[in-house]
Amino acid sequence: MQRPPSLRVPTGLPTRVKVVEVGPRDGLQNERQYVPASIKVDLINRLGHSGLTAIESASFVSPKWVPQMADGHEVMQSIDRVPGTTYSALTPNMKGFESAMRAGADEVVIFGAASEAFSNRNINCSIAESIQRFEPVANAAKAAGMRLRASVSCALGCPYQGKVHTDAVRDVVARFADLGCDEIDIADTIGVGTPGRVQEVMDAAASAFGLDRLAGHFHDTYGQALANILASLEVGVSAFHSSVAGLGGCPYAAGATGNVATEDLLYLLHGLGIETGISLDAIVEAGGLISEALGRPNLSRVGSALLAKRANLCGSTD
Amino acid sequence: MQRPPSLRVPTGLPTRVKVVEVGPRDGLQNERQYVPASIKVDLINRLGHSGLTAIESASFVSPKWVPQMADGHEVMQSIDRVPGTTYSALTPNMKGFESAMRAGADEVVIFGAASEAFSNRNINCSIAESIQRFEPVANAAKAAGMRLRASVSCALGCPYQGKVHTDAVRDVVARFADLGCDEIDIADTIGVGTPGRVQEVMDAAASAFGLDRLAGHFHDTYGQALANILASLEVGVSAFHSSVAGLGGCPYAAGATGNVATEDLLYLLHGLGIETGISLDAIVEAGGLISEALGRPNLSRVGSALLAKRANLCGSTD
Repeated sequence: MQRPPSLRVPTGLPTRVKVVEVGPRDGLQNERQYVPASIKVDLINRLGHSGLTAIESASFVSPKWVPQMADGHEVMQSIDRVPGTTYSALTPNMKGFESAMRAGADEVVIFGAASEAFSNRNINCSIAESIQRFEPVANAAKAAGMRLRASVSCALGCPYQGKVHTDAVRDVVARFADLGCDEIDIADTIGVGTPGRVQEVMDAAASAFGLDRLAGHFHDTYGQALANILASLEVGVSAFHSSVAGLGGCPYAAGATGNVATEDLLYLLHGLGIETGISLDAIVEAGGLISEALGRPNLSRVGSALLAKRANLCGSTD
Repeated sequence: MQRPPSLRVPTGLPTRVKVVEVGPRDGLQNERQYVPASIKVDLINRLGHSGLTAIESASFVSPKWVPQMADGHEVMQSIDRVPGTTYSALTPNMKGFESAMRAGADEVVIFGAASEAFSNRNINCSIAESIQRFEPVANAAKAAGMRLRASVSCALGCPYQGKVHTDAVRDVVARFADLGCDEIDIADTIGVGTPGRVQEVMDAAASAFGLDRLAGHFHDTYGQALANILASLEVGVSAFHSSVAGLGGCPYAAGATGNVATEDLLYLLHGLGIETGISLDAIVEAGGLISEALGRPNLSRVGSALLAKRANLCGSTD
């Protein structure tokens, strides 16, 4: 693989980054076709063996709402648990939390929007109420010794109200901090953010929590994800979400491509000399296999380029 | 269109950027199907009326090598010339230069690789020889009062030799500077660069020429183009090449997507509060039309997202 000559990490950037793989949950949940548990298990196992230390693996929501995730228990119970890797599950309520605990999740994920319009339209309550409802889940997670993560959606813009103010993001982050979260991610759900604004929002979030426990969750709908990640690195964010092969997408954004691809993120980070502990080759392989299994295009540019190169090399005579 | 709340240009970034549109030449030259002159003329006219001040419009190379560009004279003579806009043409030799002059090009473009392996394999001579051969073209352009631009290919990596040293880039830039170039672009021909390395290469190039006359030409093969552009902005580069709808691609890179899309670049720049004088809407429109005319996917993420959104809005009842 082509490696840039210089691998000195530019001044001011973190030297190590944590990548949170969200393909098996956030990614697959947005795929239209039903994906059998065996394929999910194989994907998670490949991801676990690539060196990833955090994999969002299941969602314990009502199977009526999200049939794709109905097999969460089976999936969580069937995967190889790589020591040191955190397998997380989305839990909208106590019922979900109990299922996640029974299934053996290491971390539960709660969520809220930074946009009142989004919160009202999607869950029919205010932001404050939506977060308050998670208090029992947060308390139960702490009592059970499980990690607690929160996701702040629409932090860079909202499909209904447009602008989202920095104060609103800081406020949501502060509320999640009060619940005792171990990690909070700032999500650009509809992918409209650009680097200057991203730095402002990350600074605001950091003022209410802690830079070292913040993560960036960027969508590539407008192609800005990697530029936004670079901008986040520059203000000290050292954890990012991504989805192998760019699995998934947001149903609220027209023409949406979804989460930034893990392959593209790793190429950026490794090119900057930043350590991740993850094998890009293993992720490219996993991305190729899941794309093939689902009969969908591989949305990772790095994945597509490297797989095409490999295929070329194999077919070449020189 | 969604606009970020803050449009204060982040400290240290240029407040205005020149965008050089290369779709009609670099883009179309790499499309497989023959594109009639009338479609080229319509595309260039739309681009000219969008506010773009620099459009690479034709290539005066042997029609045996590049049949797609055989109609350069007709195209250059048929387009509306928007006052203040520079219409440039690629000229590999004196014959090409004379054709470009007859056709009314405002600027001629010469080129050379920063990789000896690439130069030897593609034009069968050393880098130094390849640049020396352009001396008559450079002199003739100066004598005729035409602008002279040079393009340094493989500046971030080479498909044959892999690594390309910073010194090699600086050396090629210095040679082009000696020929009297008005502008020099640093091209990541195979799209392998990442931001840290890009900043090193831009710094080296600036030491041999002038930061204010340097441009960045990035390919999105590995999805890194916008991150590399952000990194270039941070070291003061204020001109970038891009291709409407992501037209074109490099035949040397497997699985290659080509030049960064103009729409995606403008979204980044405008989001940062950087002025370009260009209407994103007009470019999105032009990108949609040329993609349709060629029956190819629109490779701009911004173009695809905004066009899908428009289509949705038109079909929507609320």
